[in-house]
Amino acid sequence: MTTVIHTINELIKVIKDWKKAGHSVGLVPTMGALHTGHASLIQKSAETCDKTVVSVFVNPTQFGINEDFSKYPRTLEKDVELANTYNADIVFAPSAEEMYGNNYNKDFMTLVCPPYDLVNKLCGKTRTGHFDGVATVVTKLFNIAQPNYAFFGQKDAQQLYIIEKMVKDLNFDIKIIPCPIVREESGLAISSRNQYLSEEEKLQAVSLSKALFTIKKYFDKGIKDSKALFDTGISMLDSHAELEYLDFIDYDNFEKTDIIKGKTLVAICAKVGTTRLIDNIVLE
Amino acid sequence: MTTVIHTINELIKVIKDWKKAGHSVGLVPTMGALHTGHASLIQKSAETCDKTVVSVFVNPTQFGINEDFSKYPRTLEKDVELANTYNADIVFAPSAEEMYGNNYNKDFMTLVCPPYDLVNKLCGKTRTGHFDGVATVVTKLFNIAQPNYAFFGQKDAQQLYIIEKMVKDLNFDIKIIPCPIVREESGLAISSRNQYLSEEEKLQAVSLSKALFTIKKYFDKGIKDSKALFDTGISMLDSHAELEYLDFIDYDNFEKTDIIKGKTLVAICAKVGTTRLIDNIVLE
Repeated sequence: MTTVIHTINELIKVIKDWKKAGHSVGLVPTMGALHTGHASLIQKSAETCDKTVVSVFVNPTQFGINEDFSKYPRTLEKDVELANTYNADIVFAPSAEEMYGNNYNKDFMTLVCPPYDLVNKLCGKTRTGHFDGVATVVTKLFNIAQPNYAFFGQKDAQQLYIIEKMVKDLNFDIKIIPCPIVREESGLAISSRNQYLSEEEKLQAVSLSKALFTIKKYFDKGIKDSKALFDTGISMLDSHAELEYLDFIDYDNFEKTDIIKGKTLVAICAKVGTTRLIDNIVLE
Repeated sequence: MTTVIHTINELIKVIKDWKKAGHSVGLVPTMGALHTGHASLIQKSAETCDKTVVSVFVNPTQFGINEDFSKYPRTLEKDVELANTYNADIVFAPSAEEMYGNNYNKDFMTLVCPPYDLVNKLCGKTRTGHFDGVATVVTKLFNIAQPNYAFFGQKDAQQLYIIEKMVKDLNFDIKIIPCPIVREESGLAISSRNQYLSEEEKLQAVSLSKALFTIKKYFDKGIKDSKALFDTGISMLDSHAELEYLDFIDYDNFEKTDIIKGKTLVAICAKVGTTRLIDNIVLE
């Protein structure tokens, strides 16, 4: 049965007992509004580790001023049910005050800052400070939960890359396990933000994954020029989807690439209605 | 007998064995050139913890381009002797490559960045990026050595404040133990950089501590106005010492203070010859 813990000290106590007993710990950091994508992370952790902690925390420091922090879905009761179904031992659901004290203005706190080169593209380009907030809260969660393994979805590909870089750069003794994107039957990548979409918008949103699948199809046929692949992808995008980016990123150095050589991330972001959606696919 | 370890993996292995055996671990992070100031930290750690690790690492990321990184004293053999005398179990002396890989350009690494308000004063004002380098390497050492306690000298008062803030902000499960400044009989605060000083400069350097002691004397007599105390201090400073700052900092918020109320840090920095020296005293 999943236990819900709201305070840092309580969680630290449990983790210490687990460590003393020789248990391995898996952490699944989430912002809640859990869906089948998260379920796959929790399941993987429960298979891999003796104990699994799912953190549910809508982290204020990773939202910009005009973003959806206050309206981001908060569904703790349902989240605990889902975590329980997939055999999580603990849901850690602290308040913002518990995590940051009474001031979570980033100007007054120690931040973990990923390198500019990784941040200043894809989502980081428009979401200023977003990845500082992500890296900082993940560091805090790592230090609190002391996991042996941490599970992140490939859907947030830039986040995953940045966390892997952070773990290496700061010598965290934690193994990062990337987990594949989970999709609806239509192809739409599952996301907490999908619940903002009307039925009509949902149909438009499917075109993001269609664009990616089409790119992959043409790549597999032998087309390696990213400009040509870009055009093919764009042609699949619903006219109501407002493109933010569709970029081809070399996995080795996380730089944009013109001609696809090695493992390449194709990442797309578009607004459907007022909802900002991301998706990606890997070519190799 | 102190063991010298040069690689991260080797140290991690030893620490894991210690933890398994239930030992508490103390870390004394240094840049080497160990002196009686460091000795007091090592001694304190050996008294407090089952096992003591002294790191000896001249950290490139905390030096500015025109600073003394290349000429900073490196005296590992002597350092190990001193560490041994004061009962350190391990001296951890990695290369820059071991710590940062083959590129230690800060633009390409994840950094730990203390808040601007703490950094943009005293030493941080002239040493741009210095405290990012300090916070980053200390985070790395914390993650590698997993100490229960870490020992820092009060001499680097701003560094100590920043590390304490970092531990709190990022939820490191580590107790920071501040240790008092160790002084020569003349009053001169002991520092690795003192060895740059000629005999004549050493006499001039003593005036930094004289300035601080005089300020404390007048404060104890009832003078609370920092401008008046500043003037009294400055009058004691040798004319060959080139003042960088003499600041009165409220310990509660690390802001400059005009009228001294609570615990207050009086911090001085001056160049004697080409050597930049710092010292401080606490009024309360």
